[in-house]
Amino acid sequence: MTLSYIASILQKEFNAKDIQITGMNTLKDADAHEVSFVSNAKYVKDIKDTKAAAVIISEDLVKFLPSSSVALVVDNSYLSMAQLSKYFAPMIEDDTLPVAIIGEGSKVSSKAEIANGAKVGKNCTILAHSYVGANCVIGDNTIIYPSVTIYRDCLVGSDCIIHANSVIGSDGFGFATDAKGEHTKIYQNGNVVIENDVEIGSNTSIDRAVFGSTLIKRGVRIDNLVQVGHNSEIGEYSVMVSQSGVAGSTKLGRNVVMGGQSATAGHLSIAPFTTLAARSGVTNNIKESGKTFAGFPLMDHRKWLKLQVKIAKLLK
Amino acid sequence: MTLSYIASILQKEFNAKDIQITGMNTLKDADAHEVSFVSNAKYVKDIKDTKAAAVIISEDLVKFLPSSSVALVVDNSYLSMAQLSKYFAPMIEDDTLPVAIIGEGSKVSSKAEIANGAKVGKNCTILAHSYVGANCVIGDNTIIYPSVTIYRDCLVGSDCIIHANSVIGSDGFGFATDAKGEHTKIYQNGNVVIENDVEIGSNTSIDRAVFGSTLIKRGVRIDNLVQVGHNSEIGEYSVMVSQSGVAGSTKLGRNVVMGGQSATAGHLSIAPFTTLAARSGVTNNIKESGKTFAGFPLMDHRKWLKLQVKIAKLLK
Amino acid sequence: MTLSYIASILQKEFNAKDIQITGMNTLKDADAHEVSFVSNAKYVKDIKDTKAAAVIISEDLVKFLPSSSVALVVDNSYLSMAQLSKYFAPMIEDDTLPVAIIGEGSKVSSKAEIANGAKVGKNCTILAHSYVGANCVIGDNTIIYPSVTIYRDCLVGSDCIIHANSVIGSDGFGFATDAKGEHTKIYQNGNVVIENDVEIGSNTSIDRAVFGSTLIKRGVRIDNLVQVGHNSEIGEYSVMVSQSGVAGSTKLGRNVVMGGQSATAGHLSIAPFTTLAARSGVTNNIKESGKTFAGFPLMDHRKWLKLQVKIAKLLK
Repeated sequence: MTLSYIASILQKEFNAKDIQITGMNTLKDADAHEVSFVSNAKYVKDIKDTKAAAVIISEDLVKFLPSSSVALVVDNSYLSMAQLSKYFAPMIEDDTLPVAIIGEGSKVSSKAEIANGAKVGKNCTILAHSYVGANCVIGDNTIIYPSVTIYRDCLVGSDCIIHANSVIGSDGFGFATDAKGEHTKIYQNGNVVIENDVEIGSNTSIDRAVFGSTLIKRGVRIDNLVQVGHNSEIGEYSVMVSQSGVAGSTKLGRNVVMGGQSATAGHLSIAPFTTLAARSGVTNNIKESGKTFAGFPLMDHRKWLKLQVKIAKLLK
Repeated sequence: MTLSYIASILQKEFNAKDIQITGMNTLKDADAHEVSFVSNAKYVKDIKDTKAAAVIISEDLVKFLPSSSVALVVDNSYLSMAQLSKYFAPMIEDDTLPVAIIGEGSKVSSKAEIANGAKVGKNCTILAHSYVGANCVIGDNTIIYPSVTIYRDCLVGSDCIIHANSVIGSDGFGFATDAKGEHTKIYQNGNVVIENDVEIGSNTSIDRAVFGSTLIKRGVRIDNLVQVGHNSEIGEYSVMVSQSGVAGSTKLGRNVVMGGQSATAGHLSIAPFTTLAARSGVTNNIKESGKTFAGFPLMDHRKWLKLQVKIAKLLK
Repeated sequence: MTLSYIASILQKEFNAKDIQITGMNTLKDADAHEVSFVSNAKYVKDIKDTKAAAVIISEDLVKFLPSSSVALVVDNSYLSMAQLSKYFAPMIEDDTLPVAIIGEGSKVSSKAEIANGAKVGKNCTILAHSYVGANCVIGDNTIIYPSVTIYRDCLVGSDCIIHANSVIGSDGFGFATDAKGEHTKIYQNGNVVIENDVEIGSNTSIDRAVFGSTLIKRGVRIDNLVQVGHNSEIGEYSVMVSQSGVAGSTKLGRNVVMGGQSATAGHLSIAPFTTLAARSGVTNNIKESGKTFAGFPLMDHRKWLKLQVKIAKLLK
């Protein structure tokens, strides 16, 4: 897509040098062929450092933009980004892609669907009613139980087990809301990457990234009915017990344990070897590793136990 | 079904004028060809005003019933209603209905199932392993990802997106329990109506109404692993974040935001533009619009924040 | 599998009399052809009483083992048990089993998959995209909605309803973690047994037992998005409301009611006719039947209501 076409989508005049644009990305990650956006003055440093070919930006922030980036000045840059995201959304399936490649020794049910462009490794088992989307790559020895859905472009490692009816790569929950309260979808054009030796329970949802990847690292164990939000990262050997959830862009270090029905807010960082008791709710970064927390608001687990005793005494 | 046959199901003698009965409904909504029921004296006004052809009713409440309604006097009217509901349940699938109609430009996977009697609009995408039940109507440009199940009689608007493995129209959670503690199913003979421009995440359940419709209004955004109970109504542009839930018959106004893992009790009304923080639990009506709440029990969000400070001080 | 082969898997020399071993089980339940394991000195009584052919055991506990059991002495018996469990895992599907038997009057969608070795009773309805695994037995008059997945060896009674996209028999969440924090899967070689007249909502997960059975007793009603952990038991006519969860090995008596988003810890026993309010969290046994509880930590419901009043007063 040309930059001049993007300007026309945003209903902007375009006088700069025209180039091909390959996608959208954050200010930090965009390269010289990508468009970015900024909607908040707190990202001034990222504006100054961006390598993006063009940035959707509000008038007041243009002064911070390097001369290498074209300013696409709009009133509501978040909303304009949402409108543009649709144009970068790939087709859900693409018949022009080559027929899927199935590795030696793999057993794929005739009632599964492996979309064109996908590659399945050796000695995999893919059961009935599962769906592996376009351009997905599945490693070796991986078991995919019935009715698992893997959206296009996701990568699943070797020696993984994905239990029935889980969903890998559904759209992250993203939209821009206008002054009237109406929502415009932000197309989630990233993917999910699942490393080797990961087991995922049944009826679990792992959302694809808006840009880049939602990342499930080596050896992770995820239980049933778990939510993993877009752009989050689950560290090596971390454990998420049933009905827990990680909100968007939160990063768990290695061997974090999230108890049943626990949850985190978005955009947090949780230190390695942190244990979160059942029902705990994390709203701030956890910097020191190896600690155990409980409660909502979150606190040291022993402190939480003592506090419950104090609270019970209120009745006396 | 004739009224005399209904009386025989309930093991009642029948002496009134016989008529055809088309269904069951609440006292308020029943018309002159429907049967209703009442199990609680607090509905006296509704009894007096009902237009129902007949009412399953306890002896003590018969005196309030208008002469236009036949009294079907029973010991346990809720249980009798449950027993009768089974007789009004339609077949799950009906081969005598006409083959489904698929609109121009729509792409339906050969591995999807579109039941007889269904109609799919133009330019829709229906992916593998999805199921669209009898008499469902899907609008134009709607995308249904793999392994979505839509039960019979549900309506989905145009420009909707339903993510993988979600369920629209499963039975509401309804049963009558007898004195021994045994349950009799209340068949859920209503449906789900989803208006235009709605996006629903993966692994979400939206239950069909017992009578009438569960209603998801225009522009709503629902995340993954969300529960929407029977007969509830989600107002225009409302947002339900992952793992939240709305219990039966609760109505959200427009632009309500429910944070992650928040929930409401049943039979409530929540004012427009209400924001419910993550984990909040609503047990009373919210009448004033535009406020933000938190906690369980629910309170003003700023008050909740202050209260947490006070609670933490108990340890000092 | 011979006991000498098991010793070789565990890299142990073997001098005892060799016998055929049919499976793994707990110290209490193992018979004279099964291997068991023990990783904690608190089970001394069970060691003394075990009938297991052999026990994977640490050096310090060998002295308690009866002479009828062969000691398989290892450093980390829980980890060794996990390593061995893989060898007892049956094939997911087995083409050598006889073609499934479908009872008279049952209607099975051509888009459903009934694996070899399964038996479906009379007058059942099994809809598209459902999966009934190897050796499953389904009773009479049972309805299985679309995209339900039932793993191998599970039993479902008569007059049951399983709503769309639920999963019966996915692996319990079990693994042994070594000193480096890396996990080894404990294969879940048990099953799920669902008795007659049970209704299960949509998008619910019921995990199979590690040994023995997860048991859902007669007349149970389970709502949508519910988690039932491995080896748990749900008593007759118990009710689990949406988004509630029971952790592994917990037993509910009959007519227990679990409110929305409530949960229990594992290895608990909950007395009959207990009511758990929405959001309550159970961490101890409940011995007296017929009581109502709320909160987390759990307390008497009326006490919880009073406590909320006291807590609110902290702001004054």
